[in-house]
Amino acid sequence: MSDQVVSPRPGAQVQLEMAEQPEVLARIVGRRTELHELVRSRLPSRLRGISLIARGSSDNVAVHARYLLELATGLPVSLIAPSIITRYHHTPDSRDHLVVALSQSGKTPEIVDVARRLADGGGMVVAVTNDDDSPLAAAATVTLAVGTGRELAVPATKTVTGQLALVTLLAEAVGSSIAEYTGGESAWAALPDAAAQTLADERLLAEAVAVLQPRGTAIHLARGLTYCAALEGALKSKETSRRVHEGFSSADFLHGPLTVASDEVAVVAYGARGPVLADVAETARAAAELGSPVIGVGAPEVWNGVPGAIGLAVPQTLGEALAVIPLVIRGQQLAIATTLALGLDPDRPAGLNKVTATH
Amino acid sequence: MSDQVVSPRPGAQVQLEMAEQPEVLARIVGRRTELHELVRSRLPSRLRGISLIARGSSDNVAVHARYLLELATGLPVSLIAPSIITRYHHTPDSRDHLVVALSQSGKTPEIVDVARRLADGGGMVVAVTNDDDSPLAAAATVTLAVGTGRELAVPATKTVTGQLALVTLLAEAVGSSIAEYTGGESAWAALPDAAAQTLADERLLAEAVAVLQPRGTAIHLARGLTYCAALEGALKSKETSRRVHEGFSSADFLHGPLTVASDEVAVVAYGARGPVLADVAETARAAAELGSPVIGVGAPEVWNGVPGAIGLAVPQTLGEALAVIPLVIRGQQLAIATTLALGLDPDRPAGLNKVTATH
Repeated sequence: MSDQVVSPRPGAQVQLEMAEQPEVLARIVGRRTELHELVRSRLPSRLRGISLIARGSSDNVAVHARYLLELATGLPVSLIAPSIITRYHHTPDSRDHLVVALSQSGKTPEIVDVARRLADGGGMVVAVTNDDDSPLAAAATVTLAVGTGRELAVPATKTVTGQLALVTLLAEAVGSSIAEYTGGESAWAALPDAAAQTLADERLLAEAVAVLQPRGTAIHLARGLTYCAALEGALKSKETSRRVHEGFSSADFLHGPLTVASDEVAVVAYGARGPVLADVAETARAAAELGSPVIGVGAPEVWNGVPGAIGLAVPQTLGEALAVIPLVIRGQQLAIATTLALGLDPDRPAGLNKVTATH
Repeated sequence: MSDQVVSPRPGAQVQLEMAEQPEVLARIVGRRTELHELVRSRLPSRLRGISLIARGSSDNVAVHARYLLELATGLPVSLIAPSIITRYHHTPDSRDHLVVALSQSGKTPEIVDVARRLADGGGMVVAVTNDDDSPLAAAATVTLAVGTGRELAVPATKTVTGQLALVTLLAEAVGSSIAEYTGGESAWAALPDAAAQTLADERLLAEAVAVLQPRGTAIHLARGLTYCAALEGALKSKETSRRVHEGFSSADFLHGPLTVASDEVAVVAYGARGPVLADVAETARAAAELGSPVIGVGAPEVWNGVPGAIGLAVPQTLGEALAVIPLVIRGQQLAIATTLALGLDPDRPAGLNKVTATH
């Protein structure tokens, strides 16, 4: 692509963009009240339903949005299968519905197409995007923009954590208080610093890479309000290291896939203090018993009690719903460091473009 | 487990159960009108929403149900994240909602728990299960039972294809005609025979195993009304061959994960004639261009034009929504044959039980 920077060294571009995350998050935290009001001013007076539409890493953000919006509103939230609309030509009734359309570029044709149709049908479309001058933003009722400079590396990093902060404040604006899950005002204030501390702390990263580098595959595990970190960690590793890393809810992993655990398959388990932490830790232990080396990310309870596990801590200043952001940063670090150890350039994965034109 | 049959040879039990599929399907086809009436007699007069709850291979069936119920009703369908209810203790309003709870054993505690709570809240709970004498059936308003003998092999086969037939007739009962997608009466009549023909046809299976056996991982691709086949094919291979096989919507695979395609990663692409066939074929071609060996399953359009692809055909007598059943059977064949080639016993995957007790 003509506007892609040619890195001076492999991974320089993505590392530069990862380092911008504390600043991007601080800007979003600073606009939080303003954005709450913007969303509330356009909400249908009687909200009947909520749908999310996304692809790629935005889809992982949508999974996080889904949990938070359900907890905030009590309404079931549906992740739209775009093909129903774009291929089977059925458009659901969107009157009095909130439709959250997520796309970093704001340019994926099927996301823009679906957002337009649901807006035409009367839905309130909220675009969660980096670029507020995009076709998606033009189709939306309200745009929540990450508002960082252009993201040039193919693997999305700062736009993903920015979107995670935006969907969290969206859930705050739409429903009843979710302070119990975010950690409230003090956690929001601590968020940029928690991201900066996580980025600066590379202790044990080399040890974790020594586990991932020689293995052809890995499983990433989490659940509930941290599930998104497992999905995004697996996706980032796939996109950059070109290995099959798969993300699972720890409960789904127990239902069959657990049998893949062995010395050949590493497990990365993500957890923050909250109602699902014990489930993730228990699943990591079960995988370790079958021989998998375990990398624990987040709260020490994830890896304490897992024999031989490597623990990558994050600051314990955030509620579970915001803690997912430092967990995602750890997944980025693991992906980029492993990719470099493999002698590949994470800025330029084979066969990928920044905007994928699915319809 | 005390009631597990000790196979005379590796895979004997699962192969016996796979062979029962035409008979199981014929029995369901024979009860179709009766089951339509049973469902319709208990439906809320004003259906406000639809939710699905499942884990493991039942979750793949739920993905199929989701597409069909959306196409039949125009309502958004939500796949419930059980942890919202069991761990975060939020129970959504279920009045005038259809809740479809899928569990082969009918015994997974969290599925039974969630079904009970939503039934108590006024939801119409339909259990899609093998065992109509189970805790899940007891909690349900209506039970659609696969009604085959006990499934003893750990990898579920006949209960999965039976559930697929049941959710398809459920969608017929709940909404407007989906004959356009199933192929209508003639396709239902042809279903048992299409399953039998697929099971009997092992041409090129050894060639496909020769692709999968030496590779540590594979990607399974489909989209829309065949998406379930990719998810279930990947799950079955994971559960039996203990390798990381991941299932993708072809559109999601294009959004990043495509970069894993290489000679080391096999691609299994599933397709039936319909609106998404060209998307799947195009994605298989893109993976082949990056070096992946491709196994095409279903309609010849999936592999025609993909250099070097191996094609595993199925009878072309079914609409896309029913064609998923022979596609799933092909995924079972690939998983079992590859597992045997690896010297493992598909009847007894390491670390797994038949009923997984997640909460």
